[in-house]
Amino acid sequence: MSNQEKVFFYIDENWDCFIEDLKEFVSIPSISTLPNYKGDILRTAQWLERYFQRLNFNRVEIIETGGHPFVFAEYKEPNPLLTLLIYGHYDVQPVDPENEWNTKPFQPTIKGDCMYGRGVSDMKAQLLAQMFATQAWLKNSSLPIHLKYVIEGEEEIGSPNMQSFLMKYKDLLKADVAINCDAGVFSPDIPSITYGLRGLTYFELELKGPKQDLHSGLYGGTIRNPIHVLCELIAKMHDENGKVTLPHFYDKVKPLTEEERLLLSQIPHSDEEWKNIVGMSELYGEAGYSTIERVGARPTLEINGIIGGFTGEGAKTVLPSKARAKISMRLVPDQEPEKIEEYLREFLQQHCPSEIEWNLSLHSCSPPALMNLKSPYMRSAITALTEEFGRAPLFRREGGSVPVVAWLQQILGLDSIMLGFALPDDGIHGPNEHQNLPLLKKGIRVHCRFYEELLKDKSYEK
Amino acid sequence: MSNQEKVFFYIDENWDCFIEDLKEFVSIPSISTLPNYKGDILRTAQWLERYFQRLNFNRVEIIETGGHPFVFAEYKEPNPLLTLLIYGHYDVQPVDPENEWNTKPFQPTIKGDCMYGRGVSDMKAQLLAQMFATQAWLKNSSLPIHLKYVIEGEEEIGSPNMQSFLMKYKDLLKADVAINCDAGVFSPDIPSITYGLRGLTYFELELKGPKQDLHSGLYGGTIRNPIHVLCELIAKMHDENGKVTLPHFYDKVKPLTEEERLLLSQIPHSDEEWKNIVGMSELYGEAGYSTIERVGARPTLEINGIIGGFTGEGAKTVLPSKARAKISMRLVPDQEPEKIEEYLREFLQQHCPSEIEWNLSLHSCSPPALMNLKSPYMRSAITALTEEFGRAPLFRREGGSVPVVAWLQQILGLDSIMLGFALPDDGIHGPNEHQNLPLLKKGIRVHCRFYEELLKDKSYEK
Repeated sequence: MSNQEKVFFYIDENWDCFIEDLKEFVSIPSISTLPNYKGDILRTAQWLERYFQRLNFNRVEIIETGGHPFVFAEYKEPNPLLTLLIYGHYDVQPVDPENEWNTKPFQPTIKGDCMYGRGVSDMKAQLLAQMFATQAWLKNSSLPIHLKYVIEGEEEIGSPNMQSFLMKYKDLLKADVAINCDAGVFSPDIPSITYGLRGLTYFELELKGPKQDLHSGLYGGTIRNPIHVLCELIAKMHDENGKVTLPHFYDKVKPLTEEERLLLSQIPHSDEEWKNIVGMSELYGEAGYSTIERVGARPTLEINGIIGGFTGEGAKTVLPSKARAKISMRLVPDQEPEKIEEYLREFLQQHCPSEIEWNLSLHSCSPPALMNLKSPYMRSAITALTEEFGRAPLFRREGGSVPVVAWLQQILGLDSIMLGFALPDDGIHGPNEHQNLPLLKKGIRVHCRFYEELLKDKSYEK
Repeated sequence: MSNQEKVFFYIDENWDCFIEDLKEFVSIPSISTLPNYKGDILRTAQWLERYFQRLNFNRVEIIETGGHPFVFAEYKEPNPLLTLLIYGHYDVQPVDPENEWNTKPFQPTIKGDCMYGRGVSDMKAQLLAQMFATQAWLKNSSLPIHLKYVIEGEEEIGSPNMQSFLMKYKDLLKADVAINCDAGVFSPDIPSITYGLRGLTYFELELKGPKQDLHSGLYGGTIRNPIHVLCELIAKMHDENGKVTLPHFYDKVKPLTEEERLLLSQIPHSDEEWKNIVGMSELYGEAGYSTIERVGARPTLEINGIIGGFTGEGAKTVLPSKARAKISMRLVPDQEPEKIEEYLREFLQQHCPSEIEWNLSLHSCSPPALMNLKSPYMRSAITALTEEFGRAPLFRREGGSVPVVAWLQQILGLDSIMLGFALPDDGIHGPNEHQNLPLLKKGIRVHCRFYEELLKDKSYEK
């Protein structure tokens, strides 16, 4: 049996154990944004710690940073041919609206080809795919690749401690390239590599009108209602062509070249299918761009939440004192996240009536990124995907934000390769999140093939 | 001592007991809109039942209707000169935002001249003012007035069972005039009588976009966000002159006559003071009308609550499936509440994009009302107020809605006299609701003087 055959055999033999491990990992509710789950966050980090210890890693450590801890793990044989920094996060999104889940979010449940549970696709299965591959390899063979795992617990809240962590441990984290598992493929049969990611700025806007809630019959119609003003401001944030109206918003946006538009147009895509996935009869977005372009290559502004006044059951005739909205923007190269706050403040200054106090705070902020498609590491990843899927991957720019990609570039000078096996309709961040399990197995095999390709490549070099 | 002197002496002697009674009454959290408080609602009705029983009323009854119960109480001596139907409600508004209260909403607390607590001004103190007056009178003298109390527990949720109650007990409730204690005066020194009340329609609007919450990075910018659409709809509900834009909304509005505008302009009012009360630097409303006119004589549309997407602490990058708003309109004669729903549906049909599903439901609906200023009963009320305050009352049209006034007119043919002693800045429906206690005492005395005037009037008639 070749090394590959042995490794693949091991994967088949141990598949049920992998599934049990994944279930156990998903069942810990590691919600990073809700303070109540701090204990579960720590339990999740400890679960990873034990996993690496069982694989006899040279060094496994839970590193405190003031926020949720990092897990650092290192594997090193004598004379490794190269060093990989493997990035992942073990935290997950909240579960609301909980009543729309068909299963319990933290009781992972297999139905058909999929496992359902919060965080299974984003990104517990993606992280374990790489770790299972490493396990399968190490149980069958030596691995002359120096592995450094950096797994954070704050990705879903904007990675507030990642930059300082990377700066503090700059020497420890030296590597040749980063593997970022927080990624997906185009479809179960079509592999893809994401080479562009959008940035994000996430704000909270609070408006205050009267000093306290008032009776809407006694005061309504005589003063500005902060809910009305908030709605008017939000309505003004887009024009009738779906363009964001903040001043200077598009100033630094790199226009799409004809060449890139052609490349993106080759991605198989059907607006009809997109409508089915979202469950709407029409699509809508910035005029003059295709859906694929709107998602990956154009900036957007979305209201992620809004609240004000009486929102319980029944009726309360109140004229509220306050109203709040969560406003996020996805950014593309070369927009600067820091500037966006200025533009939003300018917009509010210009459009908010003077008698309404407004207060804007920043939740998180991360730059957009573009990656190198021509490196030898990228070549290995492409070969691994091509061999496993029987066809070459598509190259994509993605709508989501993975700020760590830009930070690894800026702070450690590391290019990232996105290698994960989520699907676009996995329901991440919403109810009934799930992971396709046959695809997970393909993913484990791709990570094994990737090790193989890297070693081949490096051996030839020598 | 004259009868009046004896009664007023009794009020002074028993003031501390009255305050204790009021505290006890306010301390029961009779929130009608929240299902959890059903037991407290019943306790409040029982408190009233015991009170009337202690006064040896002829008949005291808690009447079930399917919703929260009514309290009916009847006092009758032989050969009464007239019959009064006394209306009140024992239910209160919810307390949120609870963290803005300086005292516990259901631990009534006296600070300075005022008692603080949810429902003290709206309208537990107003109801007890009339009942204390009755107690003071009955402890000192006979009262040849047939009293019929109708006290409901559903006013704050739109009195859903009042109309059927009035129809069912039409004979039992026969009277010469109704006294509605759910009212206030202009200021502690300036009495006033409200002769006009606005109607109300209260809706809940729910919008649905994608079939479930989606990741705002992966789908944002490609479909309509229901929060955006809700905000755009709300922004469109007023034009730049503060006018409501629903089709036909103003069709039946009785224009203010020059004579009535002159009358309303005589009400002492300062926009500066209004700004102080609400805590805002500017007022705002329908162009071409004064604040007093906007409140009492013009219809309004207010958003009472809005919610959608992620509203917890922190950040969640979600593109929500749903968004909801509570929308209420205050109506003036001769607007028809039933028609308003049609107009709103027409507006939504016209402005809501077809791919967003909308669902509109009606919480409550009540007609506007105007009262007779020339009846003998009104004359007695005017005299009672004039003698107690040392000046004649102002005549006002009020912004709030007291649907029972229109229903008593429509179903029992009864005119109402509004006789209560709340103040405009009592903070009803908001945090830190309070009642001015010296004014409460004046109120008790006014009710005694009112009995006296009614009896004088009727005695002359004979």
